[in-house]
This record gives sequence, structure tokens and C-alpha cells, in this order.
Amino acid sequence: MNKIKQYLQEYSYLKSIQSLLHWDMETMMPTGAIEDRAKRLGYVQGKIHAHITSPEYKKLLKDFAQKKNLSVADKILLKELKWDYDLNFALPSQHVEELTLASAHASHVWAKAKTNNDLKSYLPHLQKLIDLKRREAGYFKAKKPYDALLKLHDKEFTSTQITRLFNDLKKGLIKLTHDVESDGRFVQVKDLKGPFPIEDQRKLSLHVAKIFGLPTDHSRLDISSHPFSINISPLDQRITTRYDVNHLDSLSSTMHEVGHALYEFHLPSEWEGTPFQEAVSLSVHESQSRFWENIVGRSRSFASFIHPEMKKTFPKAMKGIDAEKLFLIFNKSVPGLIRVESCELYYNLHIIIRYEIEEMIFNQGLNAKDIPKVWKEKYKEYLGIVPKNDSEGILQDSHWAGGAFGYFPTYTLGNLISGSLYMKLKKSRPGFEKEIAKGEFSNTLKFLVKNIHSKGRSITAADLVGELGVKDYLNYLEEKFKG
Amino acid sequence: MNKIKQYLQEYSYLKSIQSLLHWDMETMMPTGAIEDRAKRLGYVQGKIHAHITSPEYKKLLKDFAQKKNLSVADKILLKELKWDYDLNFALPSQHVEELTLASAHASHVWAKAKTNNDLKSYLPHLQKLIDLKRREAGYFKAKKPYDALLKLHDKEFTSTQITRLFNDLKKGLIKLTHDVESDGRFVQVKDLKGPFPIEDQRKLSLHVAKIFGLPTDHSRLDISSHPFSINISPLDQRITTRYDVNHLDSLSSTMHEVGHALYEFHLPSEWEGTPFQEAVSLSVHESQSRFWENIVGRSRSFASFIHPEMKKTFPKAMKGIDAEKLFLIFNKSVPGLIRVESCELYYNLHIIIRYEIEEMIFNQGLNAKDIPKVWKEKYKEYLGIVPKNDSEGILQDSHWAGGAFGYFPTYTLGNLISGSLYMKLKKSRPGFEKEIAKGEFSNTLKFLVKNIHSKGRSITAADLVGELGVKDYLNYLEEKFKG
Repeated sequence: MNKIKQYLQEYSYLKSIQSLLHWDMETMMPTGAIEDRAKRLGYVQGKIHAHITSPEYKKLLKDFAQKKNLSVADKILLKELKWDYDLNFALPSQHVEELTLASAHASHVWAKAKTNNDLKSYLPHLQKLIDLKRREAGYFKAKKPYDALLKLHDKEFTSTQITRLFNDLKKGLIKLTHDVESDGRFVQVKDLKGPFPIEDQRKLSLHVAKIFGLPTDHSRLDISSHPFSINISPLDQRITTRYDVNHLDSLSSTMHEVGHALYEFHLPSEWEGTPFQEAVSLSVHESQSRFWENIVGRSRSFASFIHPEMKKTFPKAMKGIDAEKLFLIFNKSVPGLIRVESCELYYNLHIIIRYEIEEMIFNQGLNAKDIPKVWKEKYKEYLGIVPKNDSEGILQDSHWAGGAFGYFPTYTLGNLISGSLYMKLKKSRPGFEKEIAKGEFSNTLKFLVKNIHSKGRSITAADLVGELGVKDYLNYLEEKFKG
Repeated sequence: MNKIKQYLQEYSYLKSIQSLLHWDMETMMPTGAIEDRAKRLGYVQGKIHAHITSPEYKKLLKDFAQKKNLSVADKILLKELKWDYDLNFALPSQHVEELTLASAHASHVWAKAKTNNDLKSYLPHLQKLIDLKRREAGYFKAKKPYDALLKLHDKEFTSTQITRLFNDLKKGLIKLTHDVESDGRFVQVKDLKGPFPIEDQRKLSLHVAKIFGLPTDHSRLDISSHPFSINISPLDQRITTRYDVNHLDSLSSTMHEVGHALYEFHLPSEWEGTPFQEAVSLSVHESQSRFWENIVGRSRSFASFIHPEMKKTFPKAMKGIDAEKLFLIFNKSVPGLIRVESCELYYNLHIIIRYEIEEMIFNQGLNAKDIPKVWKEKYKEYLGIVPKNDSEGILQDSHWAGGAFGYFPTYTLGNLISGSLYMKLKKSRPGFEKEIAKGEFSNTLKFLVKNIHSKGRSITAADLVGELGVKDYLNYLEEKFKG
């Protein structure tokens, strides 16, 4: 065991280096260094792949498997290591290179197409990526082609299971959006009016990160064009946000990234480089960010706690806003076309549409040119609105241009898991919402650390919340939007 | 040639990574990540050493040496590569580890000893380092032991040559300090009185970096406890400074680091990883920083150019200060005990004292316990002042605690070279000082790029300025302090 652990620690060092090169590129690097940096990132990625597919590693794995008297934990670790190894070996390097090239091209074309609302130029690139990902699905064993791609992001759920979950969720959400519309409170409330000075936004973000429990001597908050969270090393978690002087989005964005960072920070560092120091899945990772962003950060209790702080920080914008109104503002619900600007109710409908289209692409043969039509029909049916142009339709997200199919559903799976965790937490600590209203987050964090963070990939989502359903999450939403 | 160039490019990538890990540690990293980072730095250092001492590389070098029809440039490159190879191979790894450990300990003890003025606790550690460096000298061929250590920082100069140069310089400098004292202008002028708001200092530093010619899209300016400059990759040069609201030191510190960064930026990037993309020596590197900091940045012409900008930036501090007075302030000359706070005249006397002590340690057997006495005698003799305690004496610098013996003289060798470059530039472009007064620095930079930066280590300091003497530098100082 010691030998393979040592070998994997070197793997973790290489990933650390990759993370730092990436973080620096997105936050600090002078723009003119992009080509230099791309070469260095490519070099490190090559080293990582070589390390984890080497004959030496294969031998270490084999020796580990042949050891007698493996403990239960060892057996789980071995299973996860084998899973990773097979995944790393499954794709011919020629395919990976082709995909890397195609997605680099597609991303470049996509960015221009989005700005110029020029879908036509992008469609052939999207089709190329679809073809490559169809081929990729063939390299893995799976009942349905889409299942193969889903496994790359979350190996617990098949498309059959997700379709069932999302159909149930969709029904519940559509009903709930209608109820919320009739009720009117969350629809009519007006957004806070800026300006929100950026230095004040930054202070508020840092304050929230700290009280949620992210240690200041083990983290940083910086600026990037798209917020992200990254593990530079176990004791060095970095998050980013972006500031707009007219909107206060940085607050929820920070809470989201802090949720990711808290997970990474509490993974057991003695298992560095192994699956036990990795998150269960992208879905479970997302359950943590959503938990802190939505279940904590958009709760009535949190609104009441943060209200005085916000009054102090933004006295003009907060004039005449009481805690209840702040809660309504945090959850303002109107149907919109842009995923990242949506409240919890509509957000999941955006994801379900993307999921259903991906499912049609890979399981039913839908091609790029036919997506916009399906896109419009589904928006009309689920949200009652239709994009006026492709920039606010299919062109809004970068994921597909980057070759990431099967990624979107993890966002909503994460929400579902966060809902079940919420119900579990409420049962085990009925007073937890009162604590949040008082700004006490440590018991909530302890619950997550104990049940999730400290376990790494030694557990599954099913171990965490049982068979995943939509009831807990819908109950949570009903409680919030009808309470 | 192509194979070895490719091999060395990988070497340059590893050094890039090391630089980024280091830069980030000094400027950005959360404090709690220091142990994680030390492990990663150690890992990369090991990889670098393994890469450059591997049997594969040895074979590549041999093949290169055996090629027929090597060009003149190839022959120079081969010679430099062999020099580096021998250097990397000369030290037994056990010695390197012992030294690394001893200097880590000594640095730790030194920092405390400096704060507490506690020389006694530090002396045994200093002696240990002296012993190790004496042993180290034995691993290299050299006429005198100290010469071996000098070669690690600058392979062109022996202690015999430096002693001769420094004796001449010392005489000239002591005479000059007496003349400046009698003259009184540079002694009596009063420093600018702050506060200098830090954001304004930063703006001024960035402004000067830009007009000196450091491209903003290929550089950054950050804060660290000790200013430094670092090459992350050819197109990514980063410098740091520190700000004190009561002193304007950040301006000259930035000019100094910009000088280093301009050198690195203009090294021929097509030779990345080879000696042709490296500086000639530490001395020549220092000649560039000193050129921009002192010869340009403390000139009468520069004072006259920057005067209006400074009046605008610090109107209160600059009240009643004309350009001539600003020039005097930039060159205020009073003997002091602290090296880094000295003007050009006294600065070199500080270095000469350190050099003479190092020479006594390694060529004449001086031991740690006897240094303070020699230190005091020399300060008394050369500067006419004596430290009241060890914190403002032998404990002021970190170099020896880090095991860096033979490093100090490169500072003054750099000054001497910068003086000769100045005389060369004046001859080839008699109008260059008028250009500086107008804020035009591009021709000065072009001269340095053409004659130094673009050549990498394909030249020597002797190629640049002929046999090095002290006349040019002393003439430059006379011109400034008596003009």
C-alpha cells in the first residue's frame, strides 16, 4: 500500500502544479503570456497522463490487488483506482487529441458566434463535437450511448434513472412556478438598486467566506471572468468571483464557490492523490456549493442574519428593505432565458432542457442543426417564453463548445442531493435554522464534514441520501416559496 | 542539435513551474499552505536536478560534442553546457542535502537573532555553514578556495582580480566620500517628507516600469517582503516591491527590478532552456538593474523628467522642491550602517567589507566568532562609523544565513560594469541624457538589448566592456557628485 500511495502522492503534486498554472492563468497572468502558458499546461497534462498510465503504476495496482487480507477500505480504494485506471486507458490518444483540437476550435468560434448572434458559423463545429462524442461513447461499456458520457461526470446515474427523476421534478417545478406566480410575492419584489462599490462587495464576500468556515490562512478570493474554485493543495483553497458595480451577484457566487472549497479543504489530506481525497462525484460536489449558496444563503434565516451587515455596507441600496423583503429579493422568481440568472425554480428547468436535448442527441440521433427548434419548443412548454435570438438560446453556455456533454445534469442532481441533505440535517438538528439566523454555521459545517467531506470517494451519493428522489428537494422549495 | 534543444526546453518548462511556485509563495499564497508548498517545490527541484544530470542528457551532450562542422555559436553553446553539466555533477547529493538543511536552520535562527540582537545564538550556525562551504570549495578546481565559491555566481573573476579591483575602488570611493562631505550639497539636503499614499506609489512605479519599456501585457508588479524579479516564462516577467507610506523607496526598488526584468524579457526565447537564453552572470544581471536604478533613475536628467509627475502625485511632499533639489534627494549621501539604505558611494563600501571578510574566511581561515571584530574595524576605517549592535552589523543581511558566500561581490562588479556601459553608451549616443530628460528611454533600451540582452550567455562581461577596471565607474560617480 505504501508504494502505491507514494506514487499517487507524486500524482497529486503534478495536479497541484496544473492547478496553480491554471489559477494563475485565469486570475494573475499577463495577457501576453498565453502561448507560453498553454505550452506549459500541455506539458504538465502530458506528465500527469503518463504518470497515471505508466507500466510502473499498472504493476503497483496489480500488486495491490494481489495482496491478501485487504481491509474493507482497501477494497473500496482498489475498486475506485481500477475505475480511474480503466477510464484513463479507455480512450485512444488519437481520439483525445482530435477532441482537444476540435473543442479548442469550437470554443473559439462559439465565443464569436455568441457575440455576433451567428449560430450558422458555430453549427458545423457543434456537429463535429457531437460526432466525436458519439464515437467516444463507443469506447465505454454502457447500455445506452449517453450513459457512457454521463459516467465521465457521475458514475452513479444512467440516463434512464435521470430521465425518470427529471420528469418528476419537471412536473413539480412547473406546478410550483405557477403557484409562485399567482402568489406574486417573489415576482413583484424589486431588485436592490446599486451602485454597490466593488471594495464593499469584496469585503462582504470575504466576511461571508470566513463565517461559513473557510479559514483565511488557507484560502484566497480573487477575480476572474467566470467564477471558479480550485484546490492548489489541501491547505490552499482558492475561489474567484466577478464584481459588477450595479449588481450584487458576487455574494451568491462567493457562497457557491465557498461550498466547493469547504468540501475540498476537508477531504482527508493523508490520502492525497488517491480517490479518498477526491469528491464522490461532480453531482455531490455541486450539492455542496448549492447547499451553501441556496439552502443556507437564500434562506429566510440567513437573510435575517445578514440584513444588518448589508444595511451597514450598502445603506442607500438597503433603504426601506427589511429582512423579509431581503429574503424575497434573494429569491426573486421570474422566468428568464438565461440559465445563470435564474432563481432556483427556473434554474432546474433550464438544466432539464439541456439534459433532454443531450439525451436526444446521443440516444435518439438528434443533430446540431435540429437543436434550436427543440430548444424553442421546450422553453415555450416549460417556461412559457421563447428566445428572440440564438445568443440568448443555444449559444448562451460554453459547455458544449468545450466538448462537455453529460455535465449539465450534475447541476440539478446536485440540487436534488442538497435537498435530501437539508431534510436529513433538519431531522438530526432541528435547531439548525435558528443557528443560521444567529450567524452560527459551525454545526452545519460539522454535519457536512462528518457525513461527506471527510469520506472522500469512499462513499457514494446513495450511501449519503439513499435512493435519490425529488420529494425532499420539492418539499424544500415548497417550504421556501409557499412559507 | 534539435534533440538536445528539445530536451532543454523541457528543462525550461520545469524551471518555469519552479518560478511560478516560488513567485506565488512570496506574493499570493495563503500563509497556512507553506508546508504543502515546500513539498511541491522540493519535488520540482528534484525533477530539475534529475533532468539535467540524467544519462539521457549525458548522451545528448556527447552526441552534440561529436558532431562535425560545429559552428562558432555551437562551440560556445557546447562549452557553456559542459560548464553547467560539470557544475551540476560536482557536488555529492549528500553534501547538497546537508547544506540545504543547515541553511534552512541557520536562516530560521538568523531571523530571530536579528530581531533580538542575539548574535550568540546565530554564531554556531554561521560556523557550520562556513565549514560546509569550505568543504564545498574542495569539490571544484580552483587556485584558491574562495575562487571556487565565486565561480558559482560569476565564473569570470578570481579573488585575486576582485581584490585588486576593490582595492582601487575603495581608495577612489573613500576620497570621493570626503569630497562630497566637504561639498555638503548631498549631505545637507533633506529627504522628502511623507505620507506617500500607497496607491499613488504603485501608480508611479507602474508608470516608470512602462516608460522604461517593460510591456504591461508581459509583466506584473506585486508586493513581497523583499523585492525581487522573476522570469515565469519568456513572455511573463514579474517584479515585486514593498511600500512604506512614510518613505518613497518603492520607486528606486521598482527601477532596479525593472532593470532585471528587461534583461530577462529580451533574452532570445528561441533558445529557451539553453545558456543562450540566460544572463551572462549575476554581475552582468546586476549591471542592468543598477543601470536603470542608478545611472538612469538617479541622474540629473531623470530627476528633471520625473519632477512634474512627482509634483502632481505628491503635491504636499514636493512643495518647494525643484528638479535640482530632487536630484540631490535621489542621491543623498550620508554614511550609514545599513547596506540597503545607502547611496551609491557608501553602498559599494558596504559590499567591499563583506567581500574582504568572505575572502578572509575562505582564503585565510577567519572563523565566525572573529567576524564581528573585523566588521567593526573595517566600518570604522572605511565609513568612519561603528555599529552599536550586531543587528545593524553582521546580522543585517540574510545572504550568509542562506549559505550564499561569493554572492555579495556581484553587486559591486555589477556597478563597475554598469559604469563602463554608461561610458560606452555616452560615446555612441552623446545625446542620450537629453533623451532621458525628455522621458525617451527607447534608444537606451535598444543599446542594452542589442549589446547585452539579445546575446544571452554567448558573450562574457569581457566581451562587453573589455578588461574590467574602476575608472569608468569612478568617473561616472565624480561626474554626478561633483557636477
